[in-house]
Amino acid sequence: MALHEQSLPYVRAISPYQPGKPMTQLAREMGIAVEQIVKLASNENPLGMSPKARAAAEQAMATLARYPDDFVLKQALAERTGIGIERMVLGNGSNDVLDLIARVFLAPGRSAIFAQYAFAVYPLATLSTGAEAIAVAASDYGHHLAAMRAAIRPDTRLIWIANPNNPTGTFVPYPDLRDFLASVPPEVVVVLDEAYNEYLSPSERVDTTDWLADLPNLVITRTFSKIYGLAGLRVGYALTSAELADLMNRVRQPFNCNNIALAAAAAALDDDEFVARSYALNRTGMEQIVGGLKRLGCRRLPSHGNFVTFRVADAALVNQRLLKQGVIVRPLAAYAMPEWLRVTIGTEGENARFLAALAGSL
Amino acid sequence: MALHEQSLPYVRAISPYQPGKPMTQLAREMGIAVEQIVKLASNENPLGMSPKARAAAEQAMATLARYPDDFVLKQALAERTGIGIERMVLGNGSNDVLDLIARVFLAPGRSAIFAQYAFAVYPLATLSTGAEAIAVAASDYGHHLAAMRAAIRPDTRLIWIANPNNPTGTFVPYPDLRDFLASVPPEVVVVLDEAYNEYLSPSERVDTTDWLADLPNLVITRTFSKIYGLAGLRVGYALTSAELADLMNRVRQPFNCNNIALAAAAAALDDDEFVARSYALNRTGMEQIVGGLKRLGCRRLPSHGNFVTFRVADAALVNQRLLKQGVIVRPLAAYAMPEWLRVTIGTEGENARFLAALAGSL
Repeated sequence: MALHEQSLPYVRAISPYQPGKPMTQLAREMGIAVEQIVKLASNENPLGMSPKARAAAEQAMATLARYPDDFVLKQALAERTGIGIERMVLGNGSNDVLDLIARVFLAPGRSAIFAQYAFAVYPLATLSTGAEAIAVAASDYGHHLAAMRAAIRPDTRLIWIANPNNPTGTFVPYPDLRDFLASVPPEVVVVLDEAYNEYLSPSERVDTTDWLADLPNLVITRTFSKIYGLAGLRVGYALTSAELADLMNRVRQPFNCNNIALAAAAAALDDDEFVARSYALNRTGMEQIVGGLKRLGCRRLPSHGNFVTFRVADAALVNQRLLKQGVIVRPLAAYAMPEWLRVTIGTEGENARFLAALAGSL
Repeated sequence: MALHEQSLPYVRAISPYQPGKPMTQLAREMGIAVEQIVKLASNENPLGMSPKARAAAEQAMATLARYPDDFVLKQALAERTGIGIERMVLGNGSNDVLDLIARVFLAPGRSAIFAQYAFAVYPLATLSTGAEAIAVAASDYGHHLAAMRAAIRPDTRLIWIANPNNPTGTFVPYPDLRDFLASVPPEVVVVLDEAYNEYLSPSERVDTTDWLADLPNLVITRTFSKIYGLAGLRVGYALTSAELADLMNRVRQPFNCNNIALAAAAAALDDDEFVARSYALNRTGMEQIVGGLKRLGCRRLPSHGNFVTFRVADAALVNQRLLKQGVIVRPLAAYAMPEWLRVTIGTEGENARFLAALAGSL
């Protein structure tokens, strides 16, 4: 029997994640200078990273020959969230944390539920364990919670929810989410992915860590890759019950977070001014892009994140035209949304470059 | 049924990895200033990182809000090794790469083989998939290849070999290893972990990448955490057949290596002078420590790495006495070697501090 056939069949069946095109790759492919490229493809913070985080990262340079020590970040998170270190799991980005929870609960013969158009890592993390991935039809491109509740089977161990959701920007109001969580059997784990949580307006936001007290099956995941501007460093975390954190830490690689990420994230947590500035820039940039899309007659999905998903006649063609002008957005064909593109909210200048390029590409 | 019992039984059974004690932790526990502590517990490079790597890391600071782009490191590795990018897998440390290969080939009902006293991540990576871990009795604390060959069962999918091995420092001569590889059925994957390879003397070393041409079941793993001094950044890699690299990349998290690690590793690969200096320091430091252990009458295992494993009457007690003096080494009780300690070769001053502290601790 060939070597290839000895690999696990469910691993062979996986289609890898398709990341946003890196700027250097477009530069190579199109012969455009990197400085001329506007990348609005990966929901990165256009302001870069917090100055406090940068200072901490530079200080951490002295410790790079040492294996990482995660104490400082865990302590900072405990202070900030009020959740004890024993109920916390750090990840190499929140992607890592999602993978860990899948590996604790999923295997062949088990299933996990997520919404159609939800974040691509949910099916990937599910399928890489050999579990069955149950995609529940969306309602207005968002989570249809009643249908997700009804989809729970005896073999279901995990439900993935992104709130707000990427790539559609949809948002489930917290009272509905709370009712849903109360209706889920206590032996089914619910992952609540809050990667875009900090982009919600203060009136929309609820501190979901309060829910952990009476929901031991809840895992809240967050990231430093979005509003904190540390996507390149890779750091995210989960808050949950001590029981689930202990299980997740058993499959975690002991040094999964690097020293610079740990130091920068701890400092970023404290930089409220940078977060406020990033939030404000996203609000005005959202108005700019939404206004521009309206003028161009593009249908869009109302977004609660730092990106907007909009519809064009031929998304593959429009995407190619944008690339030729040095503008990178994200085509959503991999999400079975072949007529849609997703654009990240950038700086005012980047947003204008995108809108001008789009006007010439439709 | 309780939530806990819904987790996979083989995950519940895992005992997590026990890392070397961080310096800040000892400082907190013992009230010793961090500057007074000598950490020789994790086989880190006492020279720190390469100056070229540091310059590249500082340059990469500007890109931390962007998701990582691994092109530059892959290209540098391809130039250095002559192995194409399609036969390469990058990892968040080589631990990550070891985990990926386990996830491609191991599951309940399958087994993996490693040597008694081999690196602790082999049983961890094996057990986290639910596969059976077969530990083959050592020969003089090293790999007993004939016994490992004989241990292969119809359900065996993977064999783990560390050369040199951590924590024992043992080394299998290349001709013996080559014969072993030729004797393994082609449908069983062999992982050859070369984390300590750069510490071998030129006369001992063989470029094992030449073996990849006729051994499609061979996976060579290497790390930037040891002689390259980048343990805190987390970067390692695998070189293998295009077929196996493709499978491993299917379970790899898309952004598993951070931007600073990618930039620093690419630069470190080019810094031959730093590697030569680190190698030379390790040679003289090894003589210093071996000489000191001889004078103190401690039995030691001949080591081919950047550490020495030695025997004391009561290792837990001696370890406590060393900690009180601000010296961190690694107890090996977790390796079922409760009478042994492992010390990393440090700078001349660190080695002297260790030997003086040991003399007062026996």
